[in-house]
Amino acid sequence: MSTPPVSTLCIIGVGLIGSSIARAALKYEAAESVTLFDASADVRKRAAALDIGTVCDDIAAAVKDADLVLLCVPVGAMEAVMKAAAAHLKSGAILSDVGSVKTSVFETVSHHVPEHVHFIPGHPIAGTEKSGPEAGFASLFRDRWCILTPPEGADEAALATLSDFWTVIGSTVEVMTPERHDRVLAITSHLPHLIAFNIVGTAADLESVTEGEVVKFSAGGFRDFTRIAASDPVMWRDVFLNNKTAVLEMLGRFNEDLAALQRAIRWGEGDQLHAFFERTRGIRQSIIDAGQDTDKTNFGRD
Amino acid sequence: MSTPPVSTLCIIGVGLIGSSIARAALKYEAAESVTLFDASADVRKRAAALDIGTVCDDIAAAVKDADLVLLCVPVGAMEAVMKAAAAHLKSGAILSDVGSVKTSVFETVSHHVPEHVHFIPGHPIAGTEKSGPEAGFASLFRDRWCILTPPEGADEAALATLSDFWTVIGSTVEVMTPERHDRVLAITSHLPHLIAFNIVGTAADLESVTEGEVVKFSAGGFRDFTRIAASDPVMWRDVFLNNKTAVLEMLGRFNEDLAALQRAIRWGEGDQLHAFFERTRGIRQSIIDAGQDTDKTNFGRD
Repeated sequence: MSTPPVSTLCIIGVGLIGSSIARAALKYEAAESVTLFDASADVRKRAAALDIGTVCDDIAAAVKDADLVLLCVPVGAMEAVMKAAAAHLKSGAILSDVGSVKTSVFETVSHHVPEHVHFIPGHPIAGTEKSGPEAGFASLFRDRWCILTPPEGADEAALATLSDFWTVIGSTVEVMTPERHDRVLAITSHLPHLIAFNIVGTAADLESVTEGEVVKFSAGGFRDFTRIAASDPVMWRDVFLNNKTAVLEMLGRFNEDLAALQRAIRWGEGDQLHAFFERTRGIRQSIIDAGQDTDKTNFGRD
Repeated sequence: MSTPPVSTLCIIGVGLIGSSIARAALKYEAAESVTLFDASADVRKRAAALDIGTVCDDIAAAVKDADLVLLCVPVGAMEAVMKAAAAHLKSGAILSDVGSVKTSVFETVSHHVPEHVHFIPGHPIAGTEKSGPEAGFASLFRDRWCILTPPEGADEAALATLSDFWTVIGSTVEVMTPERHDRVLAITSHLPHLIAFNIVGTAADLESVTEGEVVKFSAGGFRDFTRIAASDPVMWRDVFLNNKTAVLEMLGRFNEDLAALQRAIRWGEGDQLHAFFERTRGIRQSIIDAGQDTDKTNFGRD
């Protein structure tokens, strides 16, 4: 085995993503040791029972010896966490995060970063609908993408180390600007979640169809939406508050297209509907070919 | 083993659903023998290679000895198929279908049904994103619901036989009116498909994000929508053309709710977003508890 890219890794925020990174770093030898901190005493206690590194009771102790500090908290909590950690970061440490929005994280966090620390924001494109430290698993990042958004003039060696870290735990690293990241994720992740939350809410509020009926007959398609609508509410609130411009832009396009479909249904324009529905098969095949989804029928569900 | 509920089953339309029913009927002994017909010579040839019953080259030969005839064609093709089959149906035969819309099927088909035939429309709530005879499998209907919409005064014995048939191949039968069916399915199946088709189309049309980027980063949520957006375009065109009123009603509600979310994002109303996202977890748990989806993370994908 080659030397791990990181000596001491520190995870701040031990939820699904944080605990998965800790597990992956130990399992695939991306770090020699791991320290963890979470603002919740309950989460710290549960994390301590998991054998995923040394759980610290204060943030200073967790970060002080770390070569790589990863902020794994909701986007809206990044600034507060950074303020608490800043004074204790080691000189030469790399600071990164896993937030789903990159421009706002950079804006709120960067001016708290000490000069002797290399700040390179990041975002692994991986996750599940489950939350909490117990939900994590080491293989979450395998065959997935990790986007890094280094600021101009970022330290080359720090970027290389961070890239190595993600590569060792199974991801392929892509570098882009925070603005491009936020626009791409608005359509590939944020809008799908908004739509899923919305349709599940609509179904729950109907007076003319009971929730029992919705549940019973959900195999007709509805159930597919409920998975991502079960994702963490705080995380998603913060995503929408912090990527407002790109999400509203994509939502505008979505609404425009939906209005056209609505009109085609109202006027019975079968050819237009058929042509539209014909187009969408190709993208799924591309996603399967790219290894980003399974080809198994019904996602391979039982 | 008890006697199969049906002696000779005839399947008209050998796609995913028709071929799955044929397989299930033989495997679980719901019918002693199966005949099949499809308007496409190519589909007939492929079906004949599958060992799922006797494939006939004309519809008359397929239906003439059948005790149960199941129309498994898109909703828009039901009337033409019925016209071709009507004169050849056996006296006392049960006629049913698997169409995703029930009021329009009843309206268009029922006046072609001979007096000596029992017409009881139906709809199994099961399916996959794949199409064609090869895509079928015998277990598709296990632990799923099958809705029957018998007209007033329907023959009790015929209804009992049809219910037995679906029960033997693994489904639980629910009886309701065609109007109620169309309203329930509009929210549990038709609207989810419309939304999925729409977001996949929106993503494909963006100028500011490439299709390659959408595919690459689809694990952020988008990929979940592409599965049902890969469903059969002809089937879905016909569903929307034939369940216009209920779909437009549900779409109206969806749009209203989405407008409220859009406004909350624009005005940064975090509490409202959080409250909304909190509500939607419960429904997924109910669906899992009802056995209508898997509890495995990410649908149990690899």
